[in-house]
Amino acid sequence: MNERAALIALAHIVEPGDPSVGRLVSRSGAQATIRHIDDGTTSLRHGAALRQRLHQLDIDRECVRAEALGISLLVRGDAHWPNGLIDLGDSEPFALWVRGELSRVASLERSISVVGARASTGYGELVCRTWIPDFIDAGLAIVSGGAFGIDAAAHRIALELEATTVSVLACGADLAYPLSHTSLLDRVAACGLVISEVPLGEQVRRQRFLTRNRLIAAMSRLTLVVEAALRSGAKSTAHAAAALNRPVMAVPGPVTSAMSAGCHVLIADAVATIARSARDVLAMIEPFGDTLPFEPPRTGRDGLTSWQARVLDAVPPSGTVGLRELTVSSGLAQHDVRAALEVLQHDGFVLMNAQGWRLAGRA
Amino acid sequence: MNERAALIALAHIVEPGDPSVGRLVSRSGAQATIRHIDDGTTSLRHGAALRQRLHQLDIDRECVRAEALGISLLVRGDAHWPNGLIDLGDSEPFALWVRGELSRVASLERSISVVGARASTGYGELVCRTWIPDFIDAGLAIVSGGAFGIDAAAHRIALELEATTVSVLACGADLAYPLSHTSLLDRVAACGLVISEVPLGEQVRRQRFLTRNRLIAAMSRLTLVVEAALRSGAKSTAHAAAALNRPVMAVPGPVTSAMSAGCHVLIADAVATIARSARDVLAMIEPFGDTLPFEPPRTGRDGLTSWQARVLDAVPPSGTVGLRELTVSSGLAQHDVRAALEVLQHDGFVLMNAQGWRLAGRA
Repeated sequence: MNERAALIALAHIVEPGDPSVGRLVSRSGAQATIRHIDDGTTSLRHGAALRQRLHQLDIDRECVRAEALGISLLVRGDAHWPNGLIDLGDSEPFALWVRGELSRVASLERSISVVGARASTGYGELVCRTWIPDFIDAGLAIVSGGAFGIDAAAHRIALELEATTVSVLACGADLAYPLSHTSLLDRVAACGLVISEVPLGEQVRRQRFLTRNRLIAAMSRLTLVVEAALRSGAKSTAHAAAALNRPVMAVPGPVTSAMSAGCHVLIADAVATIARSARDVLAMIEPFGDTLPFEPPRTGRDGLTSWQARVLDAVPPSGTVGLRELTVSSGLAQHDVRAALEVLQHDGFVLMNAQGWRLAGRA
Repeated sequence: MNERAALIALAHIVEPGDPSVGRLVSRSGAQATIRHIDDGTTSLRHGAALRQRLHQLDIDRECVRAEALGISLLVRGDAHWPNGLIDLGDSEPFALWVRGELSRVASLERSISVVGARASTGYGELVCRTWIPDFIDAGLAIVSGGAFGIDAAAHRIALELEATTVSVLACGADLAYPLSHTSLLDRVAACGLVISEVPLGEQVRRQRFLTRNRLIAAMSRLTLVVEAALRSGAKSTAHAAAALNRPVMAVPGPVTSAMSAGCHVLIADAVATIARSARDVLAMIEPFGDTLPFEPPRTGRDGLTSWQARVLDAVPPSGTVGLRELTVSSGLAQHDVRAALEVLQHDGFVLMNAQGWRLAGRA
């Protein structure tokens, strides 16, 4: 089983957001992690359960199943992999199931998450209807969770304007949750993307909503909470975004509305800043009124650590090079080379393809 | 002319909030300031205008006029003087005209300013109607500006509950602004206080609203902005309170309401914190759920500067002492003695009456 297949296997057998497996993969790679699970020598406490799932898994069948449904399996490090997910560290997904044109994943580089209460009010929907067109005019893709209320309003408004919208689901990408959003999600997949990190056919679970929310936060540049009750999934998305140091904004509303109470708590607790207008939100994304890259570019190689610079120096001026060669030529441990490559790829110094790594425009 | 008469004279001839005169009075007292204005030797740029006004002033007639109207003239340092005004520094009023029982001035020690848009909406009035009873239950007096909208709602709700409410006016305390609030202000004076720092018969002016707003801020422990347009007097009160390091809160509302836009700016600019409920506001006033004094008391004399301690030591254990004696016995300059006495009085170490200074409970 190669590294890619090992990552796909992990995505099938590990619950999303499990940092204990993520740490092992960062340290010794997916292949080694799978091998240790397979032969029962893993240090993981839930190794036996993972082993059982691994032995029940038929990867080829799962890949054929995805292909038959027109769903792509994207793996960490793939060229289309959403850059922002690297910020999730050890809880970064191993793979994603993606319905829709893979090239649209790049739209996540300029995207905003619009989330909120399922039991939204006319006020929240009015805010969506007046602000989202401005976000779209500014070239932003609209990310949300496909739920009732604010999520659905956000997706629908983007679809009406033929803009890119992305639904991140807590169930398999082949399913719809809620079921009555089946045709809405079909339209999202046709014009944008439906993304999930849980395998095909998997149902939603309480915990999966929370791990899904962190994905929504990681996939966009800013999270906007339009309406939220005191106990609300949108608040968890906001906290996840804040933990990732992504800007979080919340729309104030009447203190008499239970559906604004969660927004007010986020503002009072300084998790979110107050969003008074679409312009307010756009100013937070593009503080200088310009199209910024996802992160401000570093000047030359100055921002690189010495190990990152060593790995970059080890990439030949033309052609591709494998991880093992880079490990030898840089003189670093393989997991340090891998970590350096992730940063170098994220920052546009190197590109990865099926053959290995090569220099990119930045280098 | 004694010091008290000199302060009353200054209150008549100087526009409220003029720090240049305030500085002179802090340095050399009201008597000397009046003397220099009178004989044309003052350093003030507007000395000639002040001199003309002084020569047109008949203090006795003004005092008789106030008495005839049942209006008290309170002077800096009087026992009833509102403590909080000392924070205004050189722009502290020289005197106040007060309609209503002078003993009620003490209620300002536990008070909240509730201010807002004249063109308030049903939403703002609903917030007043639901929150103000809780403020009153907590023993707070309700301070406002007597204007249309939120101000009037705040006064009326307090009156309905037979609680103490205080109107601070930008015109003379004998007038009503707006005129249609004549009977409202009569009721406020009957159950609470109507206060002004401009002389009797004086009309409102643009600048006087701003100086009045700083008085509202200084007279209460917390300023709550219920509704405010982008350009709004309530915002100036909020800024004045923030400049005095008093807590400022603003009620969020729909982003679609122009009457909440000013509140949102105050929150966005961190001038105000978000007020979600009456409990939120009370927690800011009494963070430990207890009745706090206006400032946390210092333990013993530890918090005093050496000059303040010297002045305090010079106050005899019984009886009263004059400023001149204190100056001699403390060996300090008179203006330093005066400054120390202000702090000692504010902190409850000494009391001032017509005869001079004496030790208070704290000392």
